[in-house]
Amino acid sequence: MSGNGEVQESLRSKGIEPGDSVEVTSADGRIVRGILMPHHEFSGEDIVTIKLESGYNVGVHPRSSKDIELVSKNDKSSMQIGMNKIATSSVDSGKADKNLPRLSIVSTGGTIASYVDYRTGAVKPVVSADELARSVPELFQFCSPKTEVLYSVLSENMRPENWKNLAEKVAEHLNSGSAGCIIPHGTDTMGFTAAALSFSLSNLTGPVVLVGSQRSSDRPSSDSKMNLMSAARLAIDSDLAEVVVLMHSTTDDTSCSVHRGTRVRKCHSSRRDAFESVNEPPIGFVQDGKIFLECAHDKRKTGRVQADVKFDDEVALIQFYPGLTPSKFRKSVDGSRGVVVSGTGLGHTHQEIIPIIADLTNDGIPVCITTQCIWGSTNLNVYSTGRDMLTAGAIPLGDTLSETAYVKLSWVLGHTSDMKKIREMMLTNMRREMEERRSL
Amino acid sequence: MSGNGEVQESLRSKGIEPGDSVEVTSADGRIVRGILMPHHEFSGEDIVTIKLESGYNVGVHPRSSKDIELVSKNDKSSMQIGMNKIATSSVDSGKADKNLPRLSIVSTGGTIASYVDYRTGAVKPVVSADELARSVPELFQFCSPKTEVLYSVLSENMRPENWKNLAEKVAEHLNSGSAGCIIPHGTDTMGFTAAALSFSLSNLTGPVVLVGSQRSSDRPSSDSKMNLMSAARLAIDSDLAEVVVLMHSTTDDTSCSVHRGTRVRKCHSSRRDAFESVNEPPIGFVQDGKIFLECAHDKRKTGRVQADVKFDDEVALIQFYPGLTPSKFRKSVDGSRGVVVSGTGLGHTHQEIIPIIADLTNDGIPVCITTQCIWGSTNLNVYSTGRDMLTAGAIPLGDTLSETAYVKLSWVLGHTSDMKKIREMMLTNMRREMEERRSL
Repeated sequence: MSGNGEVQESLRSKGIEPGDSVEVTSADGRIVRGILMPHHEFSGEDIVTIKLESGYNVGVHPRSSKDIELVSKNDKSSMQIGMNKIATSSVDSGKADKNLPRLSIVSTGGTIASYVDYRTGAVKPVVSADELARSVPELFQFCSPKTEVLYSVLSENMRPENWKNLAEKVAEHLNSGSAGCIIPHGTDTMGFTAAALSFSLSNLTGPVVLVGSQRSSDRPSSDSKMNLMSAARLAIDSDLAEVVVLMHSTTDDTSCSVHRGTRVRKCHSSRRDAFESVNEPPIGFVQDGKIFLECAHDKRKTGRVQADVKFDDEVALIQFYPGLTPSKFRKSVDGSRGVVVSGTGLGHTHQEIIPIIADLTNDGIPVCITTQCIWGSTNLNVYSTGRDMLTAGAIPLGDTLSETAYVKLSWVLGHTSDMKKIREMMLTNMRREMEERRSL
Repeated sequence: MSGNGEVQESLRSKGIEPGDSVEVTSADGRIVRGILMPHHEFSGEDIVTIKLESGYNVGVHPRSSKDIELVSKNDKSSMQIGMNKIATSSVDSGKADKNLPRLSIVSTGGTIASYVDYRTGAVKPVVSADELARSVPELFQFCSPKTEVLYSVLSENMRPENWKNLAEKVAEHLNSGSAGCIIPHGTDTMGFTAAALSFSLSNLTGPVVLVGSQRSSDRPSSDSKMNLMSAARLAIDSDLAEVVVLMHSTTDDTSCSVHRGTRVRKCHSSRRDAFESVNEPPIGFVQDGKIFLECAHDKRKTGRVQADVKFDDEVALIQFYPGLTPSKFRKSVDGSRGVVVSGTGLGHTHQEIIPIIADLTNDGIPVCITTQCIWGSTNLNVYSTGRDMLTAGAIPLGDTLSETAYVKLSWVLGHTSDMKKIREMMLTNMRREMEERRSL
């Protein structure tokens, strides 16, 4: 059929609404039975989305506008499908109980706020944070959500510029009385954004919880609902006042882990428990709506949250490898005002790189050193290579993650270009990003 | 005292040899008792190295040449100090039993073949593989070691050029009748070298075992002896014919793991169990001299080992990060004939990078994609970003490690510059470096 709104018109005329059971005959003759899902503006007028009994969503192109039959009306309650409850009734956040603590949801996009484009089969971001809140109606039982879509991007497209707006927006929300803030975010660069918010926000009055999902919500194995619910619980009920990432602890739905924003890394490309706290345990866990914070953490402050969003975007993050010649290294750092080298082992580079570290340092361009091992600490005092690097001016960052070091250096260079001050700030444990004394 | 060989002369005149118990009064008046260790040419003539009862070695600068006293002569057997047996007798590899299977030891340097420079306190490489073999006299009970020092470098200074010589040398040793070959190697870039040998060596007649240590042998917690012994056992006694890395499985001395050369990564900067097999279990373990190979592996071939050492050194390995602008990316890959991008999550980059991937591909420069998560696989079919990258010509390498992908691309480009052939070779599972079908 030709589209042009005929399908939507046919649904309206038949009184068929999202949540109703329907039977659709597709253009290629298949008969598909299931629950009609809300129409998404990106899906195209001629496609209907049907949730099958298996829990999977499929997009169906009906043979004609007549080929959609109502099987039964929805009972307006939420229904259990697979592991996830799917809201089929329309929950209006305008109906939220204003006496409940306010939860800010500042959405940036990502899988957690995505749908499947049934034309191409690709996953695309949603545009409304309200849609997201409504997809988890249980939220309204313990908080009053205030939703805002700041971005609707896949997180690989986040730039340092986006960190700034996001930090300011989070401060605004907390300062306007929200008990906490959750940030639905793509998982790809969630660790980078978490570090950026960690350094730029201070005097936090509540938790700032980045939350994502590794499976889009149309899949029965989706982790999005449990992660969102757990993030909301943490934001409302805990005494925590740090920037954290909340994601599944395991591949099943046992619990979610609370990872410090400066210590967290995506360590698997697809598993639901992809995120890990590196060089420290997670701060705690959320299980069945209960919060267990087992490690030292910053508590809620009074007063106003500050957002200091001065970042210098001209920072390079370079992994050293055997073929990284001096010439390649020089090109890679050309134009940068700061460099993080994730070295091998304790933080080493080839000896031929060391004179360039000296040159950069002399030119006022700090060269910070992390380890590409991921786990463990730098130590440039053990081998002659390391000692030469120190002499050249390299700044070893202990057990700071490479990605966090890159964000931190960007933030520090937003505040000073004085080498002594840069070194001092980089070696200061600002947001629990490094252990001050770490024995080998 | 002034040095100039007086100390060594004094030792000779008193008949004091390495292994003897001595008492030394140092220049600053301390009295140090312990075992005299062999003199190292880098240590300086005026420094003697004493192994204390604690197992630690110290360098002592005697007050005068008279201030070294013999306490007792060495009984010429090896002695137990701490966790490690230290050979104090001189074991001549010339006395090796020629009826035992021959073990080649091709040393490249690193901590396992290092000593502490007591002037600076830094760890420096030894120069003689023979020294290394003699430090583990038990080797001579079950094999006839044939030692060769190919390099004496810390592994951060290894270049692709070094891989070539090493591969040729290993083939030569195996083809001259050795049952297996062990390669003492610095741990920093051991994973890269292991991958390089994996791709360049074929028709292996025996195991090629890279072995390192995370603690230099002067420390009582050193892992060097157990790793060397286990590597030798594996090289002689097993049916394995692959390039592997052998290192501690745990932080105690329970067992050593056998990691496939294309799957292994240094994942901790300092722990003795720093090495992990990524996306597959270790091939097996060596415990108390016994070999347990639990996973499928290639068996010993007959005929001659081939070393195909054509590598193209002009390959770039780039980790994507949020501030990697198109301009920075272009500079980083300038002059490269091949690029590996370790993308975020399933292998993504910012959408602005994608046109450059297309340009490079059109210019005959392959752009291969891995995931910076370390664990898991790329999948460019899930999100719109990934699909656009595929359209641009990106070559996703599944669950191949980024470091292995970099080495593989260097090797492939050494053999062809035809884009179709490059793509085909990169997507071929040559040395078990990728799982052909990996479900998400």
